[in-house]
Amino acid sequence: MLAQLIALDWGTTSLRAYKLAEGGQVLEQRSLSSGIMQLPETARVINGQLCADGFELAFDEACGDWLDAQPELPVIACGMVGSAQGWREAAYCDTPANVANLGNSLQTVRSLRGVDVHIVPGVIQRSTLPNVMRGEETQVLGVLQNLPAEAGADLLIGLPGSHSKWVEVIDGRIVHFDTFMTGEIFAVLSEHSILGRTQQRGASFDGDAFDRGVQTALSADGEIGPLSTVFSARSLGLTGELSAGAQPDYLSGLLIGHELAALANVQRRRRKTVHLPSIILIGNAQLCSRYSRALDACGFARVTLAEQATERGLWQLALAAGLVAAHPSR
Amino acid sequence: MLAQLIALDWGTTSLRAYKLAEGGQVLEQRSLSSGIMQLPETARVINGQLCADGFELAFDEACGDWLDAQPELPVIACGMVGSAQGWREAAYCDTPANVANLGNSLQTVRSLRGVDVHIVPGVIQRSTLPNVMRGEETQVLGVLQNLPAEAGADLLIGLPGSHSKWVEVIDGRIVHFDTFMTGEIFAVLSEHSILGRTQQRGASFDGDAFDRGVQTALSADGEIGPLSTVFSARSLGLTGELSAGAQPDYLSGLLIGHELAALANVQRRRRKTVHLPSIILIGNAQLCSRYSRALDACGFARVTLAEQATERGLWQLALAAGLVAAHPSR
Repeated sequence: MLAQLIALDWGTTSLRAYKLAEGGQVLEQRSLSSGIMQLPETARVINGQLCADGFELAFDEACGDWLDAQPELPVIACGMVGSAQGWREAAYCDTPANVANLGNSLQTVRSLRGVDVHIVPGVIQRSTLPNVMRGEETQVLGVLQNLPAEAGADLLIGLPGSHSKWVEVIDGRIVHFDTFMTGEIFAVLSEHSILGRTQQRGASFDGDAFDRGVQTALSADGEIGPLSTVFSARSLGLTGELSAGAQPDYLSGLLIGHELAALANVQRRRRKTVHLPSIILIGNAQLCSRYSRALDACGFARVTLAEQATERGLWQLALAAGLVAAHPSR
Repeated sequence: MLAQLIALDWGTTSLRAYKLAEGGQVLEQRSLSSGIMQLPETARVINGQLCADGFELAFDEACGDWLDAQPELPVIACGMVGSAQGWREAAYCDTPANVANLGNSLQTVRSLRGVDVHIVPGVIQRSTLPNVMRGEETQVLGVLQNLPAEAGADLLIGLPGSHSKWVEVIDGRIVHFDTFMTGEIFAVLSEHSILGRTQQRGASFDGDAFDRGVQTALSADGEIGPLSTVFSARSLGLTGELSAGAQPDYLSGLLIGHELAALANVQRRRRKTVHLPSIILIGNAQLCSRYSRALDACGFARVTLAEQATERGLWQLALAAGLVAAHPSR
């Protein structure tokens, strides 16, 4: 089957490349560590020229052989590659944003091979406290494409990560989203605060410790908020009630529990109902598993996991931009 | 005037030494950087013996000459010097704790000079989420000693710091306290998270940026909690609404605002009244000034600053322990 599109998911620490055929079918995929903050540095010859540019080098590693075989393949990329620190800045599109808006706003950068890389812009919500995303918009659009028609406004799409995003969609448009820095706060507290000093980080997930953290966040004691409750990850250790090995997953559950408790409150207030929306999670399987567990504890009853969101979203955007055709002539 | 007591406030990063006379009057005071995590390392002769012990070296630097002049002076110390990482561990006393309890529970360590150093224990509250303090209990007791009789249960003592403590007192006893890791979280976010990358840290305090952060925490948008609102310190920068130079004090105000909003809620619930207690602040003048500003915005109407809390508390504890007399014979 002939490839139709090269699709790149190019973030801060990783670069995933997909070779897609008709209908967005994945023919081949690769995962490189060449995120925009850790690009290759060893110069080499590309297209007859000695090149030291990290973006060019990473691009060539990711899909140079695919382009050698099919030089006319269009290329689309999403993620931090379009940020101010990326290969070429693609200015944010405002909410509400859908496939058509974003597909019409691709930024291009001409690579050394002469191939244009089409970069998906991020999305900005200009609310009192603004929110931005880059890469997640593509995943959300990939999920929306595969939703049954009856899945409507009673839906919230969650993208756990260093900065988790919770996205509200109406009629295929991204209308509102919130950001929580939970993952990065967990990381900096574990690596750089006093809480890390008594933690013993192990390989396996301690579900009981995690659940205890979630329950603490949801309890009456948790109402004092995460700036205070996080100290319990230390003080419960001092009193012998929480082992060093249990402290990391307790802290993880505590922070995710606070995130989801706040999210549930905000959702109920915005939707003016006690009823919580259905959730679709997109992202790393282990992290989504933590969030599923905590969502259940918070009363979110309907949670499903989406797969292949990025490559599907990139395919849809390439279609909207006219880079590929829905039914190519053979 | 003859000295009666050497009082040491010995924390993680600093060591303050006071030479006190009758009634706790301060004759002389010194500030050293020899906290328990940064003790001196150069061996030297103390009392005829070559000594490499950091605690001995710091102790000798802090008050060796005072002891040379008056070898019989009693010595009392509070703070992290009594922790498991200190000179000698002084086990926590349970709440409720007062001057008599703590004064009767001093731990001693015999120094190379032959002088006993009497170490004040910290206080532990064995609630569902336990809380501990070391050093703050002495400051609280120092403040209580100077309060008018009518200052009663309608009082909350605040000790801003890396880990701020909010202490409820009844009849001279520490009955309950909460910890917020606000200061340390501000530090790790500024130094190690993405928020620090766009911050420009200046020398002078930006009151407008700080107040804006406080107001954001107290606003309807702030109800989503600090795990989410902290991202606005970055996103307001991306939209050009918050300069790099304003970001640190905005983040500081935001976090302190969340701390105090949570504190106000908890206090109202516990006291079963909308009326907020009077506040006495103890600590670093610049930090207390930030907290005063934010307390005012949160509706805490009566806020005063305490001075000389540590040395007064150490004097009271030495009295209770019988190390000094209230009216020494002359």
